[in-house]
Amino acid sequence: MNAEVIAIGTELLLGYVLNSDTVYLGRVLAELGIDCYHQVTVGDNRARLEEVVRTALGRANVVITCGGLGPTVDDITLETIARATGRRLVLRPEILRAIRTRFKTLGIQMPPANKRQALLPEGAVAFPNKLGTAPGFLLPLRPAQGEREPRMLVALPGPPFELIPMVEKSLIPRLRPYTGKTLIRSKTLKIAGITESEIDKKVRDILKLRGAVTVGIYAHPSLVELRITAKGSNVQSTERAIAGVERKIRRRLGDLIFGADADTLEGVVGQLLRKKKLTLGLAESCTGGLVQHRITEVAGSSDYFRGGFVTYTNEMKIAQLGVPPHLIRQFGAVSPEVACSMAANVRRITQAELGLAITGIAGPTGGSKKKPVGLVHLALSTPAGTQLLRRQYSGARSAIKFKASQSALNLIRQWCLES
Amino acid sequence: MNAEVIAIGTELLLGYVLNSDTVYLGRVLAELGIDCYHQVTVGDNRARLEEVVRTALGRANVVITCGGLGPTVDDITLETIARATGRRLVLRPEILRAIRTRFKTLGIQMPPANKRQALLPEGAVAFPNKLGTAPGFLLPLRPAQGEREPRMLVALPGPPFELIPMVEKSLIPRLRPYTGKTLIRSKTLKIAGITESEIDKKVRDILKLRGAVTVGIYAHPSLVELRITAKGSNVQSTERAIAGVERKIRRRLGDLIFGADADTLEGVVGQLLRKKKLTLGLAESCTGGLVQHRITEVAGSSDYFRGGFVTYTNEMKIAQLGVPPHLIRQFGAVSPEVACSMAANVRRITQAELGLAITGIAGPTGGSKKKPVGLVHLALSTPAGTQLLRRQYSGARSAIKFKASQSALNLIRQWCLES
Repeated sequence: MNAEVIAIGTELLLGYVLNSDTVYLGRVLAELGIDCYHQVTVGDNRARLEEVVRTALGRANVVITCGGLGPTVDDITLETIARATGRRLVLRPEILRAIRTRFKTLGIQMPPANKRQALLPEGAVAFPNKLGTAPGFLLPLRPAQGEREPRMLVALPGPPFELIPMVEKSLIPRLRPYTGKTLIRSKTLKIAGITESEIDKKVRDILKLRGAVTVGIYAHPSLVELRITAKGSNVQSTERAIAGVERKIRRRLGDLIFGADADTLEGVVGQLLRKKKLTLGLAESCTGGLVQHRITEVAGSSDYFRGGFVTYTNEMKIAQLGVPPHLIRQFGAVSPEVACSMAANVRRITQAELGLAITGIAGPTGGSKKKPVGLVHLALSTPAGTQLLRRQYSGARSAIKFKASQSALNLIRQWCLES
Repeated sequence: MNAEVIAIGTELLLGYVLNSDTVYLGRVLAELGIDCYHQVTVGDNRARLEEVVRTALGRANVVITCGGLGPTVDDITLETIARATGRRLVLRPEILRAIRTRFKTLGIQMPPANKRQALLPEGAVAFPNKLGTAPGFLLPLRPAQGEREPRMLVALPGPPFELIPMVEKSLIPRLRPYTGKTLIRSKTLKIAGITESEIDKKVRDILKLRGAVTVGIYAHPSLVELRITAKGSNVQSTERAIAGVERKIRRRLGDLIFGADADTLEGVVGQLLRKKKLTLGLAESCTGGLVQHRITEVAGSSDYFRGGFVTYTNEMKIAQLGVPPHLIRQFGAVSPEVACSMAANVRRITQAELGLAITGIAGPTGGSKKKPVGLVHLALSTPAGTQLLRRQYSGARSAIKFKASQSALNLIRQWCLES
C-alpha cells in the first residue's frame, strides 16, 4: 500500500503560502504505515492537474489531493478528478441541504455558485465538512491491472483547519484497514545547554545505527533534537525498539535531556517549580521580557511566577531594583557584579525563593572589544547562594535574546534538579 | 521558459521537516518571471529520483534539485543526476582544495567521505558553498528536440542557510538572461485593529479585480494582509500597476494600514516614537512580558523604551506599581480602574512620556461569568490624558496574549499618529 499527495494551488507554486497540508499528511501516512513516495504541487490548471492525477493513479494506491474544492471558477479539482477517473458528477441532495443549512445559520442566503459544491463524482463517499462548505470525498477505484491492492482517490479541502478534522474523523478510519505491514514511529529527545558537536561525540555510535531503528540529530538555535525512528510490524515492537535506544541515549546524556516531543523548556521548568513548591521573580535587561513571556506562556504559571522587571535603563536598575550605582560605575551594567545584585534584589522584592537576572548586549550596536555584542551575564539567586553564568552568543539580536532565554530557563531547571 | 523544483529527502515525505526551500525558490522564480508548473518531493531512493528527474527534464527548461548533496551514502543526488543526464562524474581539483581548506580552518582533518563532494558531472559549472562542504552546480543541457529554448539542471544543497546565499550569488545571475516576458511582483499591505470582514466590506470591489492586477485577503490572528499581485512585461509597468491599486486601497483604509511587506507593528511603533522623540514605559499583567519582548526585538529600541514591569501578582501591582489596594478590592485586578492606575504610575516611575498598561485574563482558568477568559483592559497614559480600551479576545492562552500585544502596540501607534 502506498500513497501520493497532490497539493493544488498556484499560490503554493509562487511561494506565497507555506504548504503545511503535505507535512501533516506525511506524518499521518507514516503513522499508519502507508508509504508515501511522491508529493507533487501543481497550479490551478486543468491540463496539468489532470496529467498529475493520472500519473499518480498509475503509481500509487491512495491518491490524496488537497485544495481547489471551493465555489469559484479557480476551483477545478472536482471536474478534473471526474475527467481523470471517467466518472460523471452527480448532485447529492443531502450535501446541498447541508450547505444551505450552513449559510442559514450564518444568516446569509446561499450564493448560487455554492451549489457546485454539492456535486460529487459518481460512487464517491462524502466526507462532511463542519468548518467550511466544501465536502471532501473518497472515490473507490478498481485496482490497477494485475494488482490486488485496492485503489482510491481522496479529495480534501485546502485550508488546514478544514482538512485536519476531516482527515481525523473521516479519512484515517477508512485507511486503517489498509494499515501497512511496516509502521513508523518516532520520538524526539530535546537537549539544551550543550552544542551539537559535543552531543555527537557522546552518541556517535548510536547515530550510526542502521536498520529498523535510526537516530537523527537536528540542531536549532540553543536546542538540539535527537529523533529516534523505528520501523516495525506492530505498535508494541516499534515502541519497544524506541524505548531501548532511548535508554541508551539517556545513560549517556542524563539530565542534559530536558524533555521529549511536544515538551517545551518553559513547560518543564514550570513543572519542576510546581513540584518543588518554589516561586520565581525575574529581572531582565537585554532579553527585554522574553524570559517572562515564555514562562507565562504556560497555563497556570501564576502559581509559581510572581512577576518581574524589564530594567532597560541604568536608572531603572538603580531605582527599581536597588542596584548600587557604584557597581554600575565600577563594573558596567553588563557585569557579573550587576547581574548578581539584580538577582538578589529581585528575589527579595518579589518575595520569591528564586531570583533570576540577565544583563547583556543584544546588539547590533553597543558592543566593545572587552564586552562584545552577544556577551550575557546570568545570575540565579537561591536560598543556598547565587549561581553565575557568563555566555558569549553569536547571531542577530533576536537570536541572542532567544539563546539567553534558553540559558536562563536551563539554569533554573538544573538548579531545581540538583537542589 | 519554465522551471520545475525537485526537493529530495525521505524526511520531507515523512513530514518531519517543513520544506522551506521550495517556498523560497517559488518566490525567486516568480520574481524572475520564470513560470514554475510543478514542484515534486521524492525520497532518498535512486530509481524514483531518477524517474522524477527524467520526467522534469521532459517538461521544464530549468530543473532545480534541492538536497542530497552531502557526503553520506544517503546522498544520492549527484550520481542520479549523472545517470539521468548521461554524464560522467569527474573530480574537480579546485573543489577538493576548497573542501580541504574548509576543514583545515575548522581544525579538523577532512574525512575521506567528503572527497566525493569534489565530483561533478562533466560540463557542470560549480557554485561555491561558503557555508558548507557541498558545492552546487549548473549543468547546461542540449535543448529538447524541436525546442529552441535552453535547458539546464541545477543542483543545490538542502539546508536553507547554504541554499539561499548560493541562489542569490550564483543562480539568479545565471537565470537573469532568461527572465520571462511576464514578470510577477507583489506588495503586501498590513492591517491591525480591524477584522477581515470589516476590511472586506470596504474593499470588496477591489478584491474582485481580475486581470493583470489582483488583490488577495489573508487573515491571521489580529493581523490582516492585503496582497496586491501584478503581472506585466517589465518592472516599471508592474510596479506602476501595484502603486495604482495601493493608492485606491489606502484611500479606503487610511491609517488602518500600519505597514507593508517586511514591516512589523513593533518596528513601526519604534519609528513613530523615535520620530516624535517620545519614550515609553510598560506595565504588563496578562501579557506576561510579551509586549516588552516585541518592543525590544527592534534594534535601537533602548533609545525610546525605558523598561517596565510584569506585575503578575496583586502584591506586585501594589508594592511596585503603587496601585491603591482599594482599587483592586473594589473593581478587581482586571478592571479599567486598575489598568488606568498601572499606566499612570508606570509612566511616572519610568519617567517616560507614555505609560502603557495591560491587565486581563489569559486563561484557560481564572475566568468568570462577568469577567470571562480573554477579557483584557488596556490603558495608555499620555501627557494629554489617558486612553482606555476594553477587548474580549477568543482563542487559547497564547493567542489571547498575542492579540492583546497587537492591540497594545496599535494603541500606541494610533495615539502617535493623532497627537
